[in-house]
Amino acid sequence: MWAAGAQQPRRAGLALAAAAAAVLAVALAAWRRRRPPVREVLFFPSRPSCTEALLAEAAGLRTTARPCPCPLPRVDSSLSRLLRHLLSARRSLEICLFAFSSPQLGRAVQLLHRRGVRVRVVTDAQYMGLPGSQIGLLRHAGIQVRHDQEDGYMHHKFAVVDRRMLITGSLNWTTQAIQNNRENVLVVEDAEYVKPFLDEFERIWEEYNPINYRFFSKDDK
Amino acid sequence: MWAAGAQQPRRAGLALAAAAAAVLAVALAAWRRRRPPVREVLFFPSRPSCTEALLAEAAGLRTTARPCPCPLPRVDSSLSRLLRHLLSARRSLEICLFAFSSPQLGRAVQLLHRRGVRVRVVTDAQYMGLPGSQIGLLRHAGIQVRHDQEDGYMHHKFAVVDRRMLITGSLNWTTQAIQNNRENVLVVEDAEYVKPFLDEFERIWEEYNPINYRFFSKDDK
Repeated sequence: MWAAGAQQPRRAGLALAAAAAAVLAVALAAWRRRRPPVREVLFFPSRPSCTEALLAEAAGLRTTARPCPCPLPRVDSSLSRLLRHLLSARRSLEICLFAFSSPQLGRAVQLLHRRGVRVRVVTDAQYMGLPGSQIGLLRHAGIQVRHDQEDGYMHHKFAVVDRRMLITGSLNWTTQAIQNNRENVLVVEDAEYVKPFLDEFERIWEEYNPINYRFFSKDDK
Repeated sequence: MWAAGAQQPRRAGLALAAAAAAVLAVALAAWRRRRPPVREVLFFPSRPSCTEALLAEAAGLRTTARPCPCPLPRVDSSLSRLLRHLLSARRSLEICLFAFSSPQLGRAVQLLHRRGVRVRVVTDAQYMGLPGSQIGLLRHAGIQVRHDQEDGYMHHKFAVVDRRMLITGSLNWTTQAIQNNRENVLVVEDAEYVKPFLDEFERIWEEYNPINYRFFSKDDK
């Protein structure tokens, strides 16, 4: 009787241990599957490459039916890698750019906006009205854009994807810079760097709130 | 006899263990004293501050005897922090800058050169001749400078201190950018980021070797 009575808690103990081991195994497998944080440096000028398939795929279109007829090679390039990181956004995208005229990057941002990603853009007032700027198109698409009203330039060139990935460097998002300039972009998933940039974005976003704009007539001194 | 004979190796073993423990303790103490790698984000415009004391100290001059008479506060600022990181160079400094006109940063670079640090500068040909550029002064001081001969801009804005610290961002080293623009600078001691930037510097340094310069007369087609 004594021996039989002791088996009850022993069985329960074994079952508990087995359950704990199973939970541990699942957690370990998930931890192993977890991709390491992105730490990447991209240099420009970017190798010429066709990014149509990448953009079409992100838009949910079939690319095999109508491949792009352009003669550019379908290869990995700094631009395609930048686009891929950008297109990985699922929830939010903060962009803080002095100059933005690249049609490919403009299409990617519009596509994310249509996909329901909360996109916010901060830019420089002097540059945004120049021919080729994407800013008007982004505003037309319903994306929130704010700009400075300062003497100095809003000279940042960074973006934050899903509040976890920082994209920053010397690169303005212009075709000139992508194709012809010596430029660098760091892509970093590291809260220690992401947080100060997010804080800087929020600071600027509030400062550039249109309710703070000043409008002077020519008669004002 | 047998017992006494066995004490010899035992004593030697104890002495070896004590020596190993001492070495371990010293290594542990050194490891504890080792400062953690720099991971810093600086934002601009920089808070106005006087950097004279900082530069005079780095030049080995006594600052208490003749303090700077300027009215700027002696406070920590993004510019003073950038200067401090730069002035920490002991062996080498690689600079890759689109625009360089800040007198304070120019003085710091000349000071490092005089201190025996191996300074190399890469810059953009279109900008280096503009009024206020520091490039002519650096060349005059005997610092090696190379520039592009390309249609695109050499638009990088980075420096590498002692092959271990990367300073990079949106900031050109100009007074306009430091005092008036919204800018960012990352300061990173992490080989994973430093190495690709050093490789990029060496690539550009070789490409911009003056033996590769092309000189065309007006009659050339």
